Amino acid sequence: MAIKTPITVAYGDGIGPEIMQATLSILNAAQAQIEPEVIEVGEKVYLQGYTSGIPDKAWDSIKRTKVLLKSPITTPQGGGYKSLNVTMRKTLGLFANVRPCVAYAPYVPTKHPDMDLVIVRENEEGTYSGIEHRSTDEVYQCLKLMTRPGCERIVRYAFEYAKKFNRKKVTCLSKDNIMKMTDGLFHRVFNEIAPQYPDIKNEHLIIDIGTALLASNPERFDVIVTLNLYGDIISDVAAQIAGSVGLAGSANIGNTVAMFEAIHGSAPDIAGKNIANPSGLLNAAVQMLVHINQPEVASLIENAWLKTLEDGIHTGDIYSAEYSKQKVGTQEFAAAVVERLGQKPLHFKPANYKSGTYAKIECYGGEPHAQSKKVLVGTDIFIDNPTDISANELAEKLTKLGGTTELVVLTSRGLKIWPNSSIETPYLRHICCRFQSSKDVKSLKEISHNDINKLLAQFEQLGLDVVKTENLYTFDGELGFSLAQGQ
Amino acid sequence: MAIKTPITVAYGDGIGPEIMQATLSILNAAQAQIEPEVIEVGEKVYLQGYTSGIPDKAWDSIKRTKVLLKSPITTPQGGGYKSLNVTMRKTLGLFANVRPCVAYAPYVPTKHPDMDLVIVRENEEGTYSGIEHRSTDEVYQCLKLMTRPGCERIVRYAFEYAKKFNRKKVTCLSKDNIMKMTDGLFHRVFNEIAPQYPDIKNEHLIIDIGTALLASNPERFDVIVTLNLYGDIISDVAAQIAGSVGLAGSANIGNTVAMFEAIHGSAPDIAGKNIANPSGLLNAAVQMLVHINQPEVASLIENAWLKTLEDGIHTGDIYSAEYSKQKVGTQEFAAAVVERLGQKPLHFKPANYKSGTYAKIECYGGEPHAQSKKVLVGTDIFIDNPTDISANELAEKLTKLGGTTELVVLTSRGLKIWPNSSIETPYLRHICCRFQSSKDVKSLKEISHNDINKLLAQFEQLGLDVVKTENLYTFDGELGFSLAQGQ
Repeated sequence: MAIKTPITVAYGDGIGPEIMQATLSILNAAQAQIEPEVIEVGEKVYLQGYTSGIPDKAWDSIKRTKVLLKSPITTPQGGGYKSLNVTMRKTLGLFANVRPCVAYAPYVPTKHPDMDLVIVRENEEGTYSGIEHRSTDEVYQCLKLMTRPGCERIVRYAFEYAKKFNRKKVTCLSKDNIMKMTDGLFHRVFNEIAPQYPDIKNEHLIIDIGTALLASNPERFDVIVTLNLYGDIISDVAAQIAGSVGLAGSANIGNTVAMFEAIHGSAPDIAGKNIANPSGLLNAAVQMLVHINQPEVASLIENAWLKTLEDGIHTGDIYSAEYSKQKVGTQEFAAAVVERLGQKPLHFKPANYKSGTYAKIECYGGEPHAQSKKVLVGTDIFIDNPTDISANELAEKLTKLGGTTELVVLTSRGLKIWPNSSIETPYLRHICCRFQSSKDVKSLKEISHNDINKLLAQFEQLGLDVVKTENLYTFDGELGFSLAQGQ
Repeated sequence: MAIKTPITVAYGDGIGPEIMQATLSILNAAQAQIEPEVIEVGEKVYLQGYTSGIPDKAWDSIKRTKVLLKSPITTPQGGGYKSLNVTMRKTLGLFANVRPCVAYAPYVPTKHPDMDLVIVRENEEGTYSGIEHRSTDEVYQCLKLMTRPGCERIVRYAFEYAKKFNRKKVTCLSKDNIMKMTDGLFHRVFNEIAPQYPDIKNEHLIIDIGTALLASNPERFDVIVTLNLYGDIISDVAAQIAGSVGLAGSANIGNTVAMFEAIHGSAPDIAGKNIANPSGLLNAAVQMLVHINQPEVASLIENAWLKTLEDGIHTGDIYSAEYSKQKVGTQEFAAAVVERLGQKPLHFKPANYKSGTYAKIECYGGEPHAQSKKVLVGTDIFIDNPTDISANELAEKLTKLGGTTELVVLTSRGLKIWPNSSIETPYLRHICCRFQSSKDVKSLKEISHNDINKLLAQFEQLGLDVVKTENLYTFDGELGFSLAQGQ
C-alpha cells in the first residue's frame, strides 16, 4: 500500500466545516492516499489576538506538509485584522493563482456553455504590493513594481501548466501600449518564453480588449496569464459568466507550498444548515490530488462529481425545475458523489489526469541573462509646491543650480509644464524636476550619487520640500526612464 | 435666427471622411446651428513630420471654438508617433471620458437588451500618467498618482451628469481594500460628494466584483464613475456586451474644451466603399449638440436615428435577416435618417433632452478644505542590491548609522524581510530601507531634509546604490505611508 501524503486541512468558518467534512468523506471513499493534519485558522484565531488569523502551530504544519486544503474563513470587521490569504500568499511565496473557469451547462445556467479556460494570475507584484505614500496634502501615490524574475516565473508556470494539462493556447494580457516599461517587461518576457513551447499557441491582447472578449466570447480563451490586478478583475468576470461561483476551486501555488480552496466565501447566513454546496472545495481538492501526484484519484472523483451533476442530484443553489431531479443537502450530495465513484459522465467530457509524471510545477524565474551595464545619468526630484510657484519661476531658480547635471524638464502628473508647455492650466502642487548630465539623451555621461546629494542640498537651501527622488539610469545605453510627453 | 456656434471638425482617416460627411449632412438637415471649421489631423499630418499628428493651425482652431467633432484617425506604426487622443486629453485637460453604453435590441443582437448605462472615466491620472523608471537590472516601476482635486473633479462631474440627464444612481468602482491610500482617496471623495446629491442613489463596489457584475448583469448599473485604468477596461467590456461597438459615441470633456468622437477605429480596409456605419459619430454629434446647448436638435436627430433602426434600414454591420428590411450604404443610411427627422421611435424611448438650461458642466475640484499640518518624520531609501547581501547583513550596517532617524524595517516588494521575517526566500535585489525618527509610529518627531541628506551621504560611503527615496510624512498626525506586512 502506498505511503499516505500528509496534508494540512483547515475547516474554516461559516459553511467551512460542513463542506470540508463532505469533501473529505468523498476523498476518503475514493481512497485518496492522504493523511490530514487539522489546523485552526480564521475567526476564532483572529479573536484570540492573532491579527493575521493564523497561530504559529498552524504555520509549522503547513511548512511541514507543504500542502493546505482550506475552507473559507471569516475575517472579523474592523480591528486591523489582516487577510489570511494575503499573508499566506506573501509569506510562502505563492506566486501563481490558478483558477479554472468551466461552464457546466445546461445543469448550471450560463450564456457561455462552451467556456473552459484557466486563469494564471501573478500573485505577488504590481500595484498589489501595497507600497503607498502620501507626498503632499493632495497627492497620493502607489508603486507598481514588476521584476524580471517575477514575470519569468509566472509566464513559465503558465506554459508548463498548459503543457501538463494538454491545453492548446496561452494568451497574455497586459497594457503595454501605455505602460511600456512595466507591462512592457511582462509582454517581453512572454515573447521570450513562448517560443520555447512550439506546440502551444500564444497570443497577446491589450487588457481592455481582452477583458471585453472574455466577457462576450470566453470560448476563445484557453490559458490566460496576466498581472496581479488584471488577473483579479478577470477571474471574477470569468467565474461570474460561467455561472459557477459556487462550483469553482482555485490554487495558490509556490515552489514549496501550495494552497487549495473554493473561490466562494464562508456564507455565515447559511452555516450549519446542511444546504451549502461542497463542489467548490471538492474541485479544489481535485486540483490538490493532481498536485500531490494522485491523478487517478483526482479523475475518479471529478468523474463521479460530473455524473452527479448530470443525474440531477443538486444542492439548492443550482436547483432548477428543468434540469434537477432531486434537491439534496450537503451530506446527501457528498453521498451521491460517493455512490457514483467509478462512473463516468455521459454529457461532459470525462476527466483523465495523466499518471506517471510527477505533477508539481516548479518555476524559479531568473533565467540566465547577461547583467547589463547600469550607469547613473540623472535624477527626478519631486517637490511639494503648495504655494503654486509657477513653472517658469521654479525653472528660473533651478537652472541656476551648479553641478554635473542640468534641469531638463519640469513635469506634473507626467505632463511637461516647462519649457514650452502647451498645457492650459497645469497642476502645480506636485512637480517633478528632471536633472540629467546632458540635455541630449544621446550624450548622457555618468554622474555620482554624491552629485545628487549635492543637488538635494541645494534644493534644501532654496527651501523646497523634496518629497521623493527617482534616479535615472541607462542600461547598456538604453534609457531606464520614460520621457515626458513632449520632452 | 440664432447665432451659429463655431465647431472644429476633423474628417480623419480611413472611413473617417465618409462618416463625417454623412453625419454633417444630417446635422445640416436638422438645422443644427453650427459653423464647422475644418482642420487636418491624423495620418497625413504624422507623415509630414508632426509626431503628435496635429499641426499648430489645428490647435488654434480647437482653442478658439472649444469644441471638436472628430472622425477616427490612423496612427502610423513605428516611428515614435504619439497617440493624438492622449496628447489632446493631456494638453487640453480633458479630465472626463464619458461613454454611454446602450443596447438597441432586437435590432442589434445582445444578451443584455435592457442595458443603458454611462461610464464616466477619470482621464488624466493613475498609472496612465506614464511615469516609469527602471531601478535595477531586474526591477521596473510605474507610478500611480492620484490627486484630491483630480478625484473631486471627476466624482462631481459624474453626479452633475447624473442630475442633468435624469439618471438615478451613481456607482463608484475602486480597489480600496488593497490600495487604501490611492483608491481609498477616490472612494473617500466619493463619500464626501455623494450626500450633496440626495436625489441620486449611490453605491461603491470593488472593481473586480463590479466588472463581473457589469459583464453578467449590466442592467443594474446607471452611471459608473471610476479611475482611469478601470474605466478603460470596463468601457470596452460594456461596449462589447451591448453589441454596439459600431454605434457608440463618446465625449472627452474638459472645463474649456470638449471633444466628441465614435468609439470605433478608422477601419482602412472598408474605407471609401460607402459601407461604413456613421452611427457612432452621429451619436457623438448628438452628445455635442447637447453640450453646445442645442438640445432640441439633439433630440430631433436621435429620434430620427432610432426610427431608422426600427424601420429596418441598416448598414451591413448590423444587417440581419430577421430585423432588417433594407441593407443600405453610408449615404443612404444618412438620407434615411434625414427623411425621418420629426418622427419618433415607437419601440425605443424617444429622446427628450431638456432645453432652457445651459448644458455645459464645469468641475474644478479643489473643494475648500483645511490644509493639514505636514511633518517630515522619516524616509524610505530604496537600493539596488545585485550581489544579494542578506537582509541581516544589510541591517547590521544600517543600524549603525547615526543621526535623527533609525532603521525600522527592511522590505522587498512590500514584504518585511527584516527584522523577524518569516519569508522563506525573499527577493533581495531591490530593498526598501525605512528610517523613522522613532520606531514607534505613535511618537514620531519632526526631522529635517538635511537629516535625510546626511543619511544619503552615509549610504554613499557604504557603497550602496540608492535608486530612489520616498519621504515619510504625517498629516495632522496621521501616517502618510503604508506599513509593511508585519511592521
